[in-house]
Amino acid sequence: MTLFKEIEYRQRIDLARERMSEAAIEVLVVSDPANMNYLTGYDGWSFYTPQCLVLAIDEATPLWIGRGMDAAGARHTTFLPEERVIGYPDRYVHSPHCHPLNFVGDVIRERGWGARSIGVEMDAYYFTARSFAELQNSLPDARFVTADLLVNWIRLIKSEAEIELMRQAGQIANRVMTTAIERLEPGVRECDVVADVYRAQMSGTPEYGGDYPAIVPMMPTGEKTSAPHLTWTDEPYRSEQMVNLELAACRHRYHCPIARTAYLGKRPPAPLVELAEHTVEGLNLTLAAIRPGLRAEEVELVWRNHIAKAGLEKESRIGYSMGLNYPPDWGEHTVSLRPGDKTILQPNMTFHMILGMWMDTYGFECSESFRVTDKGCETFADVPRKLFVKG
Amino acid sequence: MTLFKEIEYRQRIDLARERMSEAAIEVLVVSDPANMNYLTGYDGWSFYTPQCLVLAIDEATPLWIGRGMDAAGARHTTFLPEERVIGYPDRYVHSPHCHPLNFVGDVIRERGWGARSIGVEMDAYYFTARSFAELQNSLPDARFVTADLLVNWIRLIKSEAEIELMRQAGQIANRVMTTAIERLEPGVRECDVVADVYRAQMSGTPEYGGDYPAIVPMMPTGEKTSAPHLTWTDEPYRSEQMVNLELAACRHRYHCPIARTAYLGKRPPAPLVELAEHTVEGLNLTLAAIRPGLRAEEVELVWRNHIAKAGLEKESRIGYSMGLNYPPDWGEHTVSLRPGDKTILQPNMTFHMILGMWMDTYGFECSESFRVTDKGCETFADVPRKLFVKG
Repeated sequence: MTLFKEIEYRQRIDLARERMSEAAIEVLVVSDPANMNYLTGYDGWSFYTPQCLVLAIDEATPLWIGRGMDAAGARHTTFLPEERVIGYPDRYVHSPHCHPLNFVGDVIRERGWGARSIGVEMDAYYFTARSFAELQNSLPDARFVTADLLVNWIRLIKSEAEIELMRQAGQIANRVMTTAIERLEPGVRECDVVADVYRAQMSGTPEYGGDYPAIVPMMPTGEKTSAPHLTWTDEPYRSEQMVNLELAACRHRYHCPIARTAYLGKRPPAPLVELAEHTVEGLNLTLAAIRPGLRAEEVELVWRNHIAKAGLEKESRIGYSMGLNYPPDWGEHTVSLRPGDKTILQPNMTFHMILGMWMDTYGFECSESFRVTDKGCETFADVPRKLFVKG
Repeated sequence: MTLFKEIEYRQRIDLARERMSEAAIEVLVVSDPANMNYLTGYDGWSFYTPQCLVLAIDEATPLWIGRGMDAAGARHTTFLPEERVIGYPDRYVHSPHCHPLNFVGDVIRERGWGARSIGVEMDAYYFTARSFAELQNSLPDARFVTADLLVNWIRLIKSEAEIELMRQAGQIANRVMTTAIERLEPGVRECDVVADVYRAQMSGTPEYGGDYPAIVPMMPTGEKTSAPHLTWTDEPYRSEQMVNLELAACRHRYHCPIARTAYLGKRPPAPLVELAEHTVEGLNLTLAAIRPGLRAEEVELVWRNHIAKAGLEKESRIGYSMGLNYPPDWGEHTVSLRPGDKTILQPNMTFHMILGMWMDTYGFECSESFRVTDKGCETFADVPRKLFVKG
């Protein structure tokens, strides 16, 4: 009961094996939950104990290795045959005496791959320093090679089936943002608005149920707007304040992030209104410039030139590739829209472009998730690009 | 604006420095977001880029090091003075050329600590293999020491202020579970029940708003009950099926997990009813046995002896310490209620005891979150322990 057809997973695996071959990797240990999902369909909230795929260059099908109780989930969500799903005993879990990566090392050795070159995702979230140390302990004859982002780079260009899921996420995102803006009112507790945002995220549309996004809703207000990753409180929203809404929708682990700014009051300050107009103009201009063949840094330059006219600049990147992912991040960690990134845009790359401008006491942000098309770009959500004024 | 009084954080830091001294650690790098929160109050969804505290044995106050844009969040949520909060430039983020842990290494060296013994949390979720490698690269003269769970073990015994938050989470948990059971009905999509569960989690009570739990709601039904970590689908719940409800509530990052089983139909099968009675009886017995001075494994033995009478056994542990945490897990990774764990229970240790029994085609689970008291235990939530039958 995989999400995509088996042949799509097979093609992805073949691409991974090509990249392995180029990098002289004979066995790839895939720990990133998004990469595990991408190659086999595996989907479960089980990444809090170590798990991985082991893909050998000379085999067509990877091994799934995870906690014993999660093997049933692997059988349920992947196309892997029974004998490629291997669970480790529960005594490996949170134990001072043994570690799941010792088990993984044992499996690799028993298959006769103990002296091979082993690719590991050194910077994947759930591949800890100890995971690597224990794998090395269990495979003293192996040669370890960095395989960071090897699979992530394959994920960069989406299939039509993936794009369809991102369009569905876009439809959910419309409801999520609309719910947030409708519900925002002075006197309503932040946690109650967030509660309805979550409800919209999961309920989705009548056709498409929602999945949990990789990042929680961010809706800071007041002085907290300058601290972008603080979450909500029990405090009520107040009049004459701006609220930044950094939200998302998710469909079968495929994301559509979306950000807007709202002002609670009839008369937003003139500088905020101006900043909003200028930023939206910049977003429109930059999206209009997107086309295959452009470099990531050239996209950023359109924005940079636009704000320079107002004497402004922005240090952080203006966007990043995203799609399939798990907490704590929906970004793919490959392409960033920023100076120095020379990646050439191609059709069906998908990005979140988020333009936020922060002054001393106010700020404005607006974003779109989009795919690169043959001639330009297609945005997934459809929410007006403007400062929402709730008077 | 810290959650607890500064003196409570100072006491925790002093305990950490004692443990450092015992382990001959001169500088401790704390990467676990729960440990960062515990020692300073820092709370933000920023752990998707590397961040840490650096605590020197001869200094009373740690340094916070994180992404530049998150420094404002650190100033907002911690007691740290301005000069102890250090942000790294955005060019370190997701870059092939440099890594935030190089920046951390530079800070450590500039403080004159480059040749010291450095404790690192080798198995913390967000301390990746590359994080460690880059820290080593930047500190060639340092001696690295494993500091796994050093702070987690201090977290094991809660203060009264922490216990109060867990009681508040318990009140929210009552609403979360009640909402789930009320909303469960044949014909309702799984995602719609989950949507209302999320809403209850965040909305909390009129006095206490909710925070996001470290694990998403798990409500598997049908054949998926044998795969405990699969999340929801768009499918409607069906009649004559059981549903496992593994839920939680969270208050300022402090958790109260709770699990129950429901049956959708008037007449649950007799073996399920029997299993439920037997399991609840075991839960009651085991909770009644809790007292300070007992060893963790002795708690498990009460349960083991109980189910042995029915000719049953359970491989996985029956509980674990929990409290303050971030995704992907609310467990503290220290004490497990299982054979071999000789930790002696003390007042204000807090656990989630979850008893699940899985047969071939059916199963039942029931759990309680509790603290050890002077004489026994206090459960945080208050939901009947039984099979819920929704006829």
